[in-house]
Amino acid sequence: MSAKLDVMAEYCIGIDIGATSIKMGLFETSGKLLNKWEIDTNKEDNGRYILSEIVSSLNHQLGLQDELKIEHSNIKGIGIGIPGPVTGDGNVSASVNLGWVNVSVKDQLKQLIDIPVKVGNDANVATLGEMWQGSGKGYKNLVMITLGTGVGGGVVIDEKIVSGFYGAAGEFGHMPIIYDEVVRCNCGKCGCLEQAASATGIINEAKKRIERKDIKSILDKVENLTAYDIFEAAKAGDELANQVIDRAAKYLGIAMASITGVIDPEVFIIGGGVSGAGQILLDLVKKHYMENVLFLSKDTQIKLAALKNDAGIYGAARMVLE
Amino acid sequence: MSAKLDVMAEYCIGIDIGATSIKMGLFETSGKLLNKWEIDTNKEDNGRYILSEIVSSLNHQLGLQDELKIEHSNIKGIGIGIPGPVTGDGNVSASVNLGWVNVSVKDQLKQLIDIPVKVGNDANVATLGEMWQGSGKGYKNLVMITLGTGVGGGVVIDEKIVSGFYGAAGEFGHMPIIYDEVVRCNCGKCGCLEQAASATGIINEAKKRIERKDIKSILDKVENLTAYDIFEAAKAGDELANQVIDRAAKYLGIAMASITGVIDPEVFIIGGGVSGAGQILLDLVKKHYMENVLFLSKDTQIKLAALKNDAGIYGAARMVLE
Repeated sequence: MSAKLDVMAEYCIGIDIGATSIKMGLFETSGKLLNKWEIDTNKEDNGRYILSEIVSSLNHQLGLQDELKIEHSNIKGIGIGIPGPVTGDGNVSASVNLGWVNVSVKDQLKQLIDIPVKVGNDANVATLGEMWQGSGKGYKNLVMITLGTGVGGGVVIDEKIVSGFYGAAGEFGHMPIIYDEVVRCNCGKCGCLEQAASATGIINEAKKRIERKDIKSILDKVENLTAYDIFEAAKAGDELANQVIDRAAKYLGIAMASITGVIDPEVFIIGGGVSGAGQILLDLVKKHYMENVLFLSKDTQIKLAALKNDAGIYGAARMVLE
Repeated sequence: MSAKLDVMAEYCIGIDIGATSIKMGLFETSGKLLNKWEIDTNKEDNGRYILSEIVSSLNHQLGLQDELKIEHSNIKGIGIGIPGPVTGDGNVSASVNLGWVNVSVKDQLKQLIDIPVKVGNDANVATLGEMWQGSGKGYKNLVMITLGTGVGGGVVIDEKIVSGFYGAAGEFGHMPIIYDEVVRCNCGKCGCLEQAASATGIINEAKKRIERKDIKSILDKVENLTAYDIFEAAKAGDELANQVIDRAAKYLGIAMASITGVIDPEVFIIGGGVSGAGQILLDLVKKHYMENVLFLSKDTQIKLAALKNDAGIYGAARMVLE
């Protein structure tokens, strides 16, 4: 082996497959992002072209990185995040968003490219990303909760993703939390956390209270109400808006205290679109967490996510360094 | 090294420190229990004699095992379960039951005996015991919930105990579950799982309903009511008793569905005195778990514990094989 090869940098690749686009990133194993790009998600024929289009795009991009002299042999691996449950052996039983049923991602990629592959659930992978280069840097035991259209998340213990036996670890959105809920969640149950703490849940609750007309609100006349509108109204002192976000934070705080009763993480990271509300959300969540958590864990850190939409590619790349 | 030494069996020792007695067991590393014995827990002077008395008893017992020719050098280690939170590095910040405050068990034992030591929380350690030689045999990802005077438990992922950052993982008893509870739990909060699902919780609920006199019950005249009485009455068809245990099982099922939303274990093991109720409890818990869990995990196993009071020594011994 030549001296040149000895000092050559090593690389890893992170891929985050979403319902509309596939994000890809080339990283140094140190955590430095060298290049990122996207392709559309081709959902034709139940997503059967997705993996081959990823490999084509990857080979094309690697070819463009002339000055780095990247060979397949100095890429430690490719990590891939998938929107759906992934078991420990890297199989995807179903991804509704991609049209996949029983896809063995690892085996299929082995036919297409000679680089080791690791596969994980997208939310779990994003948690690992925040641990590597985001708000979770320096922590080994963390939980990320993603508040978006739904509520998802991930669990990392000793720097490793916890997948769960059925690939359902970190499915915080479907913890049974709201006992008096009568509307059904998408999952078929009633009273899931995401019915209160997702953007959808927050909007639904605000609409319900606006219709009730108990109190006047600056939201009364807003059309196409968004979670952003509600947080802005709350910041401006609107009582109805404050009741709505306090309710969301209350159920989130209860769920987080329960999560602590299970694995007692060092830090919670709150991500997803709703986390854009920032400090007002964080303060309320901390208050309700403290009211519900066992005294032993009263010093758990609660932080906002840092990597936004790039958490997935960071975490996917980090997976291959485990 | 002689041929004789090559085939010599290896041993490990499991110790379970309780508030009234200390259980100890000598095991082959295969999992075979060779000998078990107990000494009283000496709580004088904040439990300062406990560790030295353990070592005296251990050396005495090893001396009696002449035919096994056990030397310290062929004992792989000593595992110890402690009633209180234990952090990953084996330190005990406080054990109310023993009178201990900031005891570094590992360091103190190193002064007393030349065998490697591992320390864990007693409930976590018992979970590992059930995994090794009990109802959890063959599983790698399991949760044990212990229903006794209080409610405790443990989490094992990939055959390893999850301790939690503050040593509070597996503290299922203090998950915030009963929203309309007004009586305080021992921990200072209101509405902890153990207020419904412990023996104490079950008895308190039965007494409350008996005093209300809404329905006649064969428990109306029972003095010094026990959880055993209530389960027996339920089996005999008593309506009040059935309402009480259904309520306990409901909150337990909700908590278990939440636990699954966090780590999605392959199996739940129900232990502790209350689990002696057997099938009637198991059936109710399964029913309520199924009503509350996300469909992905509807096939989670739920079983009764097998090792009873020996789970602690088994798990402690297993800890040193990690």
